[in-house]
Amino acid sequence: MAKKVVIIGGGDAGTYTLEAIFKKGAKVLKQFDITLVKKEKGGSSSICAVPFALQGVFSMKEVAEIDPPKTFIDHGIDYRTETEATSIDLENSTVSLSTGEELKYEYLVIATGRKPRVPTIEGTTMEGVYTMSTVEDGEKIEAAMNASKAKNTVVIGGGLIGLQVALAFLKKGLQTTIVVGHLTPLSSMLDPDMGTLVREKLEKEGIKFIFGRNVESIKSDGAKVRSAVVDGAEIPADIVAISRGMLPNSELAKKAGIEIGETGGIVTDQFSHVKKNGKYINNVYALGDCVEVIDAITLRPKLSQYASTALVQAKVVANNMLGISYPLEPSLSPAIATISNYQVGSVGITSAIAERYGIKVISGKKEKPTKARFYPGRKSMAVKLLFDIYTEKLIGAQLISEDIVADRIDGLCNAIRKGMTAKELIRMEKSFDPCVSLHRDVMVDAAEIAAEQFGKTEG
Amino acid sequence: MAKKVVIIGGGDAGTYTLEAIFKKGAKVLKQFDITLVKKEKGGSSSICAVPFALQGVFSMKEVAEIDPPKTFIDHGIDYRTETEATSIDLENSTVSLSTGEELKYEYLVIATGRKPRVPTIEGTTMEGVYTMSTVEDGEKIEAAMNASKAKNTVVIGGGLIGLQVALAFLKKGLQTTIVVGHLTPLSSMLDPDMGTLVREKLEKEGIKFIFGRNVESIKSDGAKVRSAVVDGAEIPADIVAISRGMLPNSELAKKAGIEIGETGGIVTDQFSHVKKNGKYINNVYALGDCVEVIDAITLRPKLSQYASTALVQAKVVANNMLGISYPLEPSLSPAIATISNYQVGSVGITSAIAERYGIKVISGKKEKPTKARFYPGRKSMAVKLLFDIYTEKLIGAQLISEDIVADRIDGLCNAIRKGMTAKELIRMEKSFDPCVSLHRDVMVDAAEIAAEQFGKTEG
Repeated sequence: MAKKVVIIGGGDAGTYTLEAIFKKGAKVLKQFDITLVKKEKGGSSSICAVPFALQGVFSMKEVAEIDPPKTFIDHGIDYRTETEATSIDLENSTVSLSTGEELKYEYLVIATGRKPRVPTIEGTTMEGVYTMSTVEDGEKIEAAMNASKAKNTVVIGGGLIGLQVALAFLKKGLQTTIVVGHLTPLSSMLDPDMGTLVREKLEKEGIKFIFGRNVESIKSDGAKVRSAVVDGAEIPADIVAISRGMLPNSELAKKAGIEIGETGGIVTDQFSHVKKNGKYINNVYALGDCVEVIDAITLRPKLSQYASTALVQAKVVANNMLGISYPLEPSLSPAIATISNYQVGSVGITSAIAERYGIKVISGKKEKPTKARFYPGRKSMAVKLLFDIYTEKLIGAQLISEDIVADRIDGLCNAIRKGMTAKELIRMEKSFDPCVSLHRDVMVDAAEIAAEQFGKTEG
Repeated sequence: MAKKVVIIGGGDAGTYTLEAIFKKGAKVLKQFDITLVKKEKGGSSSICAVPFALQGVFSMKEVAEIDPPKTFIDHGIDYRTETEATSIDLENSTVSLSTGEELKYEYLVIATGRKPRVPTIEGTTMEGVYTMSTVEDGEKIEAAMNASKAKNTVVIGGGLIGLQVALAFLKKGLQTTIVVGHLTPLSSMLDPDMGTLVREKLEKEGIKFIFGRNVESIKSDGAKVRSAVVDGAEIPADIVAISRGMLPNSELAKKAGIEIGETGGIVTDQFSHVKKNGKYINNVYALGDCVEVIDAITLRPKLSQYASTALVQAKVVANNMLGISYPLEPSLSPAIATISNYQVGSVGITSAIAERYGIKVISGKKEKPTKARFYPGRKSMAVKLLFDIYTEKLIGAQLISEDIVADRIDGLCNAIRKGMTAKELIRMEKSFDPCVSLHRDVMVDAAEIAAEQFGKTEG
């Protein structure tokens, strides 16, 4: 008898779970009778790609449905769109649906995702005010920015999605103001000094920033948005995009008695099992944006709402359902963002997180080109590396460049994972070819600057 | 009293040693009275860049003198060009020069570099036959390929410099045949299956290969080259470029009684000290292409004639001269080469080296795009990862792509250094942005393919 599996949620986390099972082959797949329920229409989409669709890199249609339901149905999945799970009964191993049906499960996978963090101010629900967490949100914003009357826009939030949406507005020729509660953009990824580099680049391109302030209310002309109010002054706005981060969508789990952590995310163990009444439940998993993870540096819970985190968690869930001991590592949350013609990358912890947890840091920062000086089209890269003052190990890295930073971030992620020290980094052999590199690499320079401070600063 | 330092050689290794000392600041620099002697004219040059100058990416002049002698003289260095060191007297701590002068030293740095490996066949010294190890060689080849009569060329050797020179010939519209002793190109960097990918690409561009054969002789029309003979048949050639690798230029050291290893390179300890009569000499260093290093995987001697290796060794020498304990790590020799519109990268050992030293390997290979499928301009990447069957640790990596591979190679170099296993690699969080990456990364896929074989194959 095939074992009944119910997956709640068809976002990245749910989709990756299916794909991780598919990857095991048809014989393994036959061991399971899988039902996936999702609220949304259609198959899987790529949320990460929506800002680029807004910027016109490709069409919204191309990313709205990466894989249609048929892809999953052809694998024998009972793939139910526009279907909501309304409650979970852990005692009886059932899930109730909005259709009135009740599904029995032997394995349950909770992948309920996230929801936008909306400030509790007046006007957030009126026409012209959008959040940015689904393809539908993207489609609404696209329609609004293409409307002939649109002229002024306000983005609330200076995270990577906020910046990317702002750039889409700018590309359309719209006036764009970003209101950021923190004092620099991308504060969850970058220290203030690195964030300032991003700020300067965006200001040069024509984006206006207001830092250290929150929007107090959103005003309307009748039903339609007119302005966002900051410090009592109205900033004209035909569109307001709210992008203040995401909250775990953990209500359904909470209602079922599953433990929710200090971050608002579902608590899981290293095999992605959920917890109830102090006990982990061996046949109920949670993954993706709705869970909290353990940070690999602070060893405390955090949110890591990235596709890259969900992808590893999906492998953990799939393997454990098959009886394979496949634990989840604490998370380093490598993150990259293409912003205009440059990239921003971050992995490990920032100085702010270090300070919050009392970790003393020595950092090294350097900005220089990434190619030999005779090479045409050389670009600059800014690197900041953070080391633990006691262990001298790398605990965080931040990169900004017109060159690709993704591969460096991934390499640094593994370096952090494996406990690489500043002294090891400065003695690394750095591959050289004048087309793509510089003998004395910016990353090694940053590590050397940090290494010179060890022993000189009080630990 | 400033300590007298003599550096023999003004190539990358000698130059990097100077620069590593300069980096310590003017106060440290004052502790030394440094003389550098070099046979060549002018200041420092970039040998790695010569093939790209031949291909027209920039002019030969731009790379012939990256830093003029003045750069070094301004730092107080006695920088002597066109001066040869003729002998070293380790007992009396002196170096004799071609000028008849004798230099006393308190620290000696031997950085005598490399020389081309020329096959012992007839015709290698005639007009139209060139080696490829100095900027002068590059200038001669450039003049020959720009001569109106040039039509046919033969390159002896299928290493990265040979391929790059062949591509320069091809770009000029010359017929190009590469004669390779091995069965695939780039055999020191790539396994045969990966080398075959490079072969196919180059053949598509119009390069002709002859594999598993050596040139038996070079024939002339009077003084000028006419053809290269392979299997008794003449291949017409107006230019023959010999690029069969480099030998350590270690004669001067050998004559002084310094120990030469099985590779032909100077033997040094982890602080780059040379050895005589079984004893390491604390004030005599050797580095760069003239030394052998310890391979980080086999723990046996090898040559690592890369600028990246010399750069780390230069830091070792400079720090140790200053009394700082700064050891050299065994070498992983990351290497990258831009060939036409793609890149080839390699780090750690190949399957051939593994076999030579009896290391049993499990490998995983995968080729797929590096970007999301809806993203314009996505490119493919081929990855082969080699793991030790017993430890399950990564011991080698080979990459080929139209995308940049340098940063991935550096990341994998650190992963090998820190003993990363296949199981750790497949659980790595891989940063994602649809502009530059794919959720399910080719590198992780390759690691998964390898991981599936552990336990199934006899160790």
